[in-house]
Formats: sequence, C-alpha cells, structure tokens
Amino acid sequence: MEMVRLNPPAELTMPVGDAMYSQRAIRRLDPNRPVTDAQLKIILDSASKAPNGGNAQPARYLVIRERGAIKEFGKLYFEAWWAKRRDAYGWTSKADIPEDSQYRFAAGLADEMVNAPVVILVYSNSTGVAASSTFPGVQNLLLSARALGLGTVLTTLHADVMEQVNTMFGVPSEMVFHCCIPIGYPRGNFGPTSRLPTSVTTSWDRWGNPPPWK
Amino acid sequence: MEMVRLNPPAELTMPVGDAMYSQRAIRRLDPNRPVTDAQLKIILDSASKAPNGGNAQPARYLVIRERGAIKEFGKLYFEAWWAKRRDAYGWTSKADIPEDSQYRFAAGLADEMVNAPVVILVYSNSTGVAASSTFPGVQNLLLSARALGLGTVLTTLHADVMEQVNTMFGVPSEMVFHCCIPIGYPRGNFGPTSRLPTSVTTSWDRWGNPPPWK
Repeated sequence: MEMVRLNPPAELTMPVGDAMYSQRAIRRLDPNRPVTDAQLKIILDSASKAPNGGNAQPARYLVIRERGAIKEFGKLYFEAWWAKRRDAYGWTSKADIPEDSQYRFAAGLADEMVNAPVVILVYSNSTGVAASSTFPGVQNLLLSARALGLGTVLTTLHADVMEQVNTMFGVPSEMVFHCCIPIGYPRGNFGPTSRLPTSVTTSWDRWGNPPPWK
Repeated sequence: MEMVRLNPPAELTMPVGDAMYSQRAIRRLDPNRPVTDAQLKIILDSASKAPNGGNAQPARYLVIRERGAIKEFGKLYFEAWWAKRRDAYGWTSKADIPEDSQYRFAAGLADEMVNAPVVILVYSNSTGVAASSTFPGVQNLLLSARALGLGTVLTTLHADVMEQVNTMFGVPSEMVFHCCIPIGYPRGNFGPTSRLPTSVTTSWDRWGNPPPWK
C-alpha cells in the first residue's frame, strides 16, 4: 500500500508541554458545537505519525458522527455501565456510589456519552503486541484534539456490548477493539491533573533506588 | 499517596505538531554526549501527565545510566535478538536479512544498544488493562524527548531474556514489562515518517465507508 509523508498542520502550534500538562479527561461535551471534518482529519493524521512496531500500522479508526447512531450507542454504553456496576457492587443509582470513588466520574460519562458530537472507536487489524502499536497513536490523537481546543476522554467498552456495537457499525469480527474516545468542545475547562511525583514512580539504575529529585 | 500538580516545563516549547511529525525512531545514539538528570526529569514528568484508567497510574520506570550496566544489557539484547532470528529464520548475520526487510533496522539497533547513554525500561504494577494506561505515557515521554532534541526508539525485549534483565536490576517478579526505550542525542537526523494515508485507516460512520478526504 502506498505510504505518504506529511508536513505538520499549521493548526498544531500549541507548545507540546502545554498540551500534555493541560490534557485532562473531559466528560461533559457540548452537543451543539460541531467538530469539523478538517479537525477530524488533523487528529487522525496525528495519530498515524506515532511509532508502531515495524511500521506495520495495525490501528484502524471508526469515526461516528451521525446523531442517531451516537444516541443509540450512548444508550447502550449507559446500560452496560450500570449493568456492570449492579453485578459487581449492587449499585443501581449514583446515590449508591461512594463519595470519593473515581466511579462517580465514570457514571457521569455514562450519562454524557449521548451528547458527544463525535465518538471514535479504535481497533487494530492484528492481535499480539497491537496495544503497544496503537496507544501511542491514541495519545497523539488526544494531544492534537487538546491543541485544537477539543475535549476527549479515553474510555473503554464493556466486553458484553462489543458484539452489539460491532454489529451496529458493521465491524468485521477479526478486528480487535482497543478504546472509545468521545470528542467535542468542553462544557467546563481544561486544567491541571494530579499525579504521583515521578520520584515515586521512577527507579534509578536499580529497582527501588530513587532518582536525584523529589 | 500524595499527588502533585505541576506546571509545564519551560523547555517543552516545540509546537506539538512539529514534535509528532518529526518523531522518528532514532537507533544510532551518540555515546559521548550525555543526557542530563534535568532532561530525564522533564521526560518522566511528561509521561506522568498522560491519561490512565481511574488515575491508578500503574506505570513504573527504571532508568539505566551506568555505562557498565548498559554494556551488559546491550550485549544481552544483541545476543537475544540474533538467537530469536536464528531460530525463526536461520539468519546468523546481517547478510542473511533480506534487503527490504524492517529487520535490517532492528538488527542495527541490536548493534547500537550498547551505545545508548540512557535506557528506560517501562513496567506496570498491575496486569489487565495496564497497556492502555502505560503507552499513552510512553508516547508523552517520546514526544518530550523529541522536543528536547533527544532521539529515542520504542522497542521490546524478548521473553527469554526478561528473567536475566529483571535479576540484573532487581526488578520484583510482580512487575509487568511493557517496553524498552534507549535515549540519547542522535547520530543522524530527525525527519519525516512514511505512513498509510488516514483515508485508508479510517471508516466514517460505518466500517468501510471512507472519510471525506483522500
């Protein structure tokens, strides 16, 4: 297959550090402000530039824009999310979720999926090491969306709805699903994220030796 | 564990598009030009900012800088690379590798690993969906290295040397290995990469429908 060399698009001028440091999960998207085809081309082109094993480029992207399809998909996402939490924890509404649980955010996303102007489902056409050849491109996609002012959240689908979703969009059975990314202008703000200091997550020359910083 | 909020470092001013579009695998590194601790902190901090499931932050980084350790590690990498190709294809030297094979590049890296000023091994402290919570951070690490003028290549280790490597550096057996990243100033140039056009890798609203661009 013919390959191409592209120049960086003029729209991606945000400093790389600013994009990384202000990239947070945006779960509340504005359903009334559309994402353009030109923006989607920019973020998908960026994804293609990421490293992947042997340049085999296994990643494949399904871009869903039709309102009706996103509503149907969002309903399925919502039902699957709550079915899983009901089975695992006995929760049937938000009041059941502990105050300090990350699941509160996830439940919010389950409400909001129907409002996403665009949803991208990421697959690969091969198994094995495909995750290591797919998620670097996913991060390029998320960073370039951030640079364009678009909000995203990296999420997944529950195994028990995959067959329905794949049937809904005609996805061949040999494709391997990796992640789901709703995209749109944020209702709310970008902003800093809280993380463990790298002095805690990094070893220096031998496991458990701290690096020379705090 | 206490978490921190950081501001983007002043060094990461390269436009995000330029970093993504000029990030190519750099397999030949300058052994005589050191990578500073301050640079390593910047790239590891960047890695920490990437999205990860439930902000559980499973990624752990082992930074190897000691020359003796890198030489020992590089020798092991070289031997394992050739053992695997001997078993799989009967190759015993570069002359055996077909001219147009991506393995020519990989064989070059097997030669060059000993010259890397720094090697980072990336692990996670949990299994399951850990790859999706690790490789977005790996891509941040690679992009910020690029923004600092440092070359990298995303590679892996062969399963049959993992035990030796983990013993060499005292890595606990419960850690899950994800990838190996040699880092240094390039001998050679950054430059464009060749990729499939996104019109080939993208479906629009239904699998197989092309997007509205070429």
